[in-house]
Amino acid sequence: MKREVVRYGMVGGDLGAFIGGVHRNAINYQASTSLVAGCFNPSEAENRATGEFYRLDADRVYKDYKEMAQKESQREDKIDFVSIVTPNFMHYEVAKEFLLNGIHVVCEKPLCFEVAQGEELKAIAKDKGLLFAVTYSYSGYCMVKFARQLIKEGKIGSIINVNAEYPQEWLIDELGNGEKSTTKLSVWRMDPLYAGISNCVGDIGTHIENTVAYITGLKIKKVAAKVDRFNQELDLNANILVEYDNGCSGSYWCSQVSVGNMNGLTVRIYGTLGALEWDQEHPDYLRFTLKGQAPQILSRGNGYVYGRAAQLSRIPSGHPEGYYEAFANIYKTFIGAILKTIHNEQLTQEDLDFPQIDDGIEGVKFVHAVIESGNDQSKWVTL
Amino acid sequence: MKREVVRYGMVGGDLGAFIGGVHRNAINYQASTSLVAGCFNPSEAENRATGEFYRLDADRVYKDYKEMAQKESQREDKIDFVSIVTPNFMHYEVAKEFLLNGIHVVCEKPLCFEVAQGEELKAIAKDKGLLFAVTYSYSGYCMVKFARQLIKEGKIGSIINVNAEYPQEWLIDELGNGEKSTTKLSVWRMDPLYAGISNCVGDIGTHIENTVAYITGLKIKKVAAKVDRFNQELDLNANILVEYDNGCSGSYWCSQVSVGNMNGLTVRIYGTLGALEWDQEHPDYLRFTLKGQAPQILSRGNGYVYGRAAQLSRIPSGHPEGYYEAFANIYKTFIGAILKTIHNEQLTQEDLDFPQIDDGIEGVKFVHAVIESGNDQSKWVTL
Amino acid sequence: MKREVVRYGMVGGDLGAFIGGVHRNAINYQASTSLVAGCFNPSEAENRATGEFYRLDADRVYKDYKEMAQKESQREDKIDFVSIVTPNFMHYEVAKEFLLNGIHVVCEKPLCFEVAQGEELKAIAKDKGLLFAVTYSYSGYCMVKFARQLIKEGKIGSIINVNAEYPQEWLIDELGNGEKSTTKLSVWRMDPLYAGISNCVGDIGTHIENTVAYITGLKIKKVAAKVDRFNQELDLNANILVEYDNGCSGSYWCSQVSVGNMNGLTVRIYGTLGALEWDQEHPDYLRFTLKGQAPQILSRGNGYVYGRAAQLSRIPSGHPEGYYEAFANIYKTFIGAILKTIHNEQLTQEDLDFPQIDDGIEGVKFVHAVIESGNDQSKWVTL
Amino acid sequence: MKREVVRYGMVGGDLGAFIGGVHRNAINYQASTSLVAGCFNPSEAENRATGEFYRLDADRVYKDYKEMAQKESQREDKIDFVSIVTPNFMHYEVAKEFLLNGIHVVCEKPLCFEVAQGEELKAIAKDKGLLFAVTYSYSGYCMVKFARQLIKEGKIGSIINVNAEYPQEWLIDELGNGEKSTTKLSVWRMDPLYAGISNCVGDIGTHIENTVAYITGLKIKKVAAKVDRFNQELDLNANILVEYDNGCSGSYWCSQVSVGNMNGLTVRIYGTLGALEWDQEHPDYLRFTLKGQAPQILSRGNGYVYGRAAQLSRIPSGHPEGYYEAFANIYKTFIGAILKTIHNEQLTQEDLDFPQIDDGIEGVKFVHAVIESGNDQSKWVTL
Repeated sequence: MKREVVRYGMVGGDLGAFIGGVHRNAINYQASTSLVAGCFNPSEAENRATGEFYRLDADRVYKDYKEMAQKESQREDKIDFVSIVTPNFMHYEVAKEFLLNGIHVVCEKPLCFEVAQGEELKAIAKDKGLLFAVTYSYSGYCMVKFARQLIKEGKIGSIINVNAEYPQEWLIDELGNGEKSTTKLSVWRMDPLYAGISNCVGDIGTHIENTVAYITGLKIKKVAAKVDRFNQELDLNANILVEYDNGCSGSYWCSQVSVGNMNGLTVRIYGTLGALEWDQEHPDYLRFTLKGQAPQILSRGNGYVYGRAAQLSRIPSGHPEGYYEAFANIYKTFIGAILKTIHNEQLTQEDLDFPQIDDGIEGVKFVHAVIESGNDQSKWVTL
Repeated sequence: MKREVVRYGMVGGDLGAFIGGVHRNAINYQASTSLVAGCFNPSEAENRATGEFYRLDADRVYKDYKEMAQKESQREDKIDFVSIVTPNFMHYEVAKEFLLNGIHVVCEKPLCFEVAQGEELKAIAKDKGLLFAVTYSYSGYCMVKFARQLIKEGKIGSIINVNAEYPQEWLIDELGNGEKSTTKLSVWRMDPLYAGISNCVGDIGTHIENTVAYITGLKIKKVAAKVDRFNQELDLNANILVEYDNGCSGSYWCSQVSVGNMNGLTVRIYGTLGALEWDQEHPDYLRFTLKGQAPQILSRGNGYVYGRAAQLSRIPSGHPEGYYEAFANIYKTFIGAILKTIHNEQLTQEDLDFPQIDDGIEGVKFVHAVIESGNDQSKWVTL
Repeated sequence: MKREVVRYGMVGGDLGAFIGGVHRNAINYQASTSLVAGCFNPSEAENRATGEFYRLDADRVYKDYKEMAQKESQREDKIDFVSIVTPNFMHYEVAKEFLLNGIHVVCEKPLCFEVAQGEELKAIAKDKGLLFAVTYSYSGYCMVKFARQLIKEGKIGSIINVNAEYPQEWLIDELGNGEKSTTKLSVWRMDPLYAGISNCVGDIGTHIENTVAYITGLKIKKVAAKVDRFNQELDLNANILVEYDNGCSGSYWCSQVSVGNMNGLTVRIYGTLGALEWDQEHPDYLRFTLKGQAPQILSRGNGYVYGRAAQLSRIPSGHPEGYYEAFANIYKTFIGAILKTIHNEQLTQEDLDFPQIDDGIEGVKFVHAVIESGNDQSKWVTL
Repeated sequence: MKREVVRYGMVGGDLGAFIGGVHRNAINYQASTSLVAGCFNPSEAENRATGEFYRLDADRVYKDYKEMAQKESQREDKIDFVSIVTPNFMHYEVAKEFLLNGIHVVCEKPLCFEVAQGEELKAIAKDKGLLFAVTYSYSGYCMVKFARQLIKEGKIGSIINVNAEYPQEWLIDELGNGEKSTTKLSVWRMDPLYAGISNCVGDIGTHIENTVAYITGLKIKKVAAKVDRFNQELDLNANILVEYDNGCSGSYWCSQVSVGNMNGLTVRIYGTLGALEWDQEHPDYLRFTLKGQAPQILSRGNGYVYGRAAQLSRIPSGHPEGYYEAFANIYKTFIGAILKTIHNEQLTQEDLDFPQIDDGIEGVKFVHAVIESGNDQSKWVTL
């Protein structure tokens, strides 16, 4: 009988961690997939408690991710994939270890801090024939997928301008005093040792970059940025001019100090024949306008929505889907691809409709280019 | 060691069923709870396939719900609760069987077709000391809970008027030809044998009734309704005047033939000091206005939201929660209450913050009163 | 040479009055029309001051509206029409006087308090061949006219349900103390001597009635209403069931005690093929949905808007028009009809696209029926 | 007796012209102000027809604006001010002529094409003690004034970032063919002879610049822009980075080729304590958020709105004001200042709350800087 069950392990993501919980819940949407191994936290107590909560075999709760990668790879009932939800600075090393041990990888974004690291991971994955997903969550939303579809079909013509933004309020209290932040969260975000060269652009600017790239298929040629640090070591706000490879222009804005915005990722794409607008806080809707006509408010789950957006829609129109479903869509596709791989079936383009390692690398390039431009008079920096 | 694991069974909800899947997914949000038994479909093949998909022991996939109730009740590792997601006309009999066998019950709405049936179920549950939840899903949303809290605290003063509606478009093609519907779904909805005395009021009108009751704490005294059937046997649209026990007025409108509305449950509550408005299609937001002041758009997950709404919030503000989380919140509370019951702990009011059997009975009364009024010149009918 | 200049007089509307100023400003949108006579206020001082401000000849500022009607009617350069903006209880007598003296009339709503009065005015106007407009302002908005056009063309099919409302907050402080109001405004509104049998229904409920009638062409057959007075002599809130002559249902709600609503007239019309929604606070937009398709947000001034809505549009799309333009559109049409009458040209249906005396009478019937129903157990009352 | 009547003349603005009609209508909101002279069109026939329509004395309908300036300046009943609504390239010369003849000036934007011209006009006006208004219309909206007030009072703290945009769709058909436009309108807009060095930035980009400057009080230090011409001679789209004199950042976007946007001027201002957002298509509203609190939707005409925004509000809250009222507010203030000047009264800051010649000069500087930056690799250009 064909295997339908998929097993996975997790690195990072103890019981108290936010994003680890999101991943587990999203994976749970696929009833066929089970958590069977983990290395959740350097603290032995928290690690064990997490394993017990999920009723894992004690010998599959590992102290060390390297040990986990190696031991799991030798089991007959080994994990099919690992989900990496550690702090950002560990992504590269953990991903590398699992790839080297022949295990498919899902990794939180950012993929890594340096482009060379990303290229190295890509080479190993290719060499080993492994699947690699980077959880740029917003590409998982149905109506983001429908935007992509409409553009692919030429519905809005050639793209001539992009306007996208991601403002948040939550770090407003980091402004201005010049002292190093002391809250735990701020330490992770504002200290270059853990956050890399960027805080805001790396954390949410890259979501703009990826969401626009996914929807439009455009590649960024170069950026010119004004980056604001407000006396902190890392950036809190950035305004970015963009030029894409087709010559058209864009403008991105990311901020963690913009009062009145919770998680305001909004993407607007303008073409010669029409335009599309998507707002993450109301993800089931997509504003679509054709030249000379009235704007239409498309909504998920209706008969006029087709393709991937329709396949992945879970509940009827008007019943809101949200953030978990976006993650679940990425995992559903990724796990489907693993099953095909297990059964030696050919993977189609559609089977690979999840963020790839190349998307992760593009994100790292984007962050480096923006920060470099911001450090040098907003000059144009080529990606 | 204290038991943290909860086991449940399901009646109805084979792999192809919509609402059963929603329930299972919502229950999955609690990692501690496992599906271990079921009677998913009268068809043996579908029943077995569903059991296999969820890796159930074959002897816990039952042909008959009575057999399931009896056998499960005698096992040491018996199910702690059953989730009933059968067609509506079976709710009463299935719930009764499990109650009689000492098993806690979660039942989809409507609880049953007749008030007497509801009273009977209530008496058995009380007698046996069993928990009983009716899944009026909208009471599970965080911002619905916050609306309730603000009203309880007197923030909008005494309620003087209510305006609530639930329009949908999806049965627009049932209009007018006078022939009996033939699609499978329509048969369930439009045939009194399966749907009871009402289609639209029973299906979605009751959601208005319950959501308003939950938010306001008001009880309906009487209704006067104009009910439209458009040459079908059952109702498709209803406009309803309401008088509450405090003497104040309300107006409800439910419809399944209103073009441009997907799932438009909207509740507006007006008081002597302020007003609240909640719209199901954007459930993370709550419009709150104090007399003489500007409307405020409250959103889930922010520091100014407290109480149950804050406790049940899962992801940060601006990251949309949706329909699954509303169900999951009901189950989370219900399962928490079961665990306390297992451990012989006292249940507080808060522990019972899920729709009770009394809410289910109130819903049945409401449907009967509206239909009776509609059949007799929109006269006032007391609940 | 063809006369292009139109002269008018005003009764009521001294310098301090609100609605008189709105009328004058709206008339001013037609550069060809001049204020030349008036009887603005019983106080001689205020009357004279208003006349002086508008540079009127002293002998055309009248102490008494009867004198004004008679003297003006005998001048060669007499006023072509009178604009009546007195307190409501005087509308009937003033309008009658001017009609009897052969002068066209524009009268604020309500036309009068009793149906018989309205019929009498209608008979005189017909007998004398005079034009009579009642300023139901909302029918003057371009997108209201476009809604009417789309429905006339059958775009939304046969109408099956109507939902309309007009909530305001501004009388919230009249609630509940049971004492007679003492503010000047409240006296006019809450005292039957001046306000007639109704406050809220008469003031804004009639706007719902007229706007729906204008858009849909439906006539109300009967109403059943719950009317709330909150210990005042006159109504402050009403929920109303409606049945139209085509048998379809409607629900109206008007309120002056609903916190968070400034001037919330919203009309939603549902048909067998589509639906329309218009919201007075954003009057340049019209939500239009066809069965099975995405809602479209039509906006004034675009190429896809045609007919009267296009003819009356003054400024490009996206530049907001508002309340003054709605009034100005009524006057523009009315003055155009007067000019045609002066030149003995035939009036078309389109020339008469302003609220007629019949609309005024329908409004009086509506108010009486609603109040009667509210006084008698919400029974159905035929108009 | 104190003179209350103000006389004005107009240059440009024949009966068929759009913006001239807007100005006249806006001036009409002040009943005290009369059009008495004009030079409306080079065509004698159109000039005369316009004069006749407004019942002007034939000898005050001038063939030539110079003749008009000179003759009017010598009359006892001369015009108090002139309103200049000619094509843009004539603004400078016409304004100069009237200033030199001692007549107050209202001039459409752009003030002129060269900074030196603006400085010259300013010097003459100062020398002659004349008032000069440039009709940046958006500064006339009540809620724009309230935004300015809240910022002045420190309600949102120190400004840290600005995001403003002005997208339109209407020139979408100018895209890309590389041929010169041939429609009349396009000729004015797309030919440097008539439009100066910029089309889109000059036409609407300057409105962003002025509206932000008015609201915030910030002055732009420098800009870096990517300007798109799409094979036309002049610009149709521009993305602009901004640095203000206080060191904070901004991002502007203007476009006339963005499908789905009619007149989308939107301004968002972020401070250390709060944020404000205003959208021209819904001008009666202002979104105001304090750090850590829920967004409030302020609306014109309510008790919580005070200062200039309250003084200039004409109709009750919820009754929409629009584009005409914004212009009328500028004229009301300007005419009030003229009357004070006539009566030799001292002008306060508030009396001068209309766009000044300095604002016009700032606009010219902005256009030059943006175009220069766009022509040279988006380098920073100081204003």
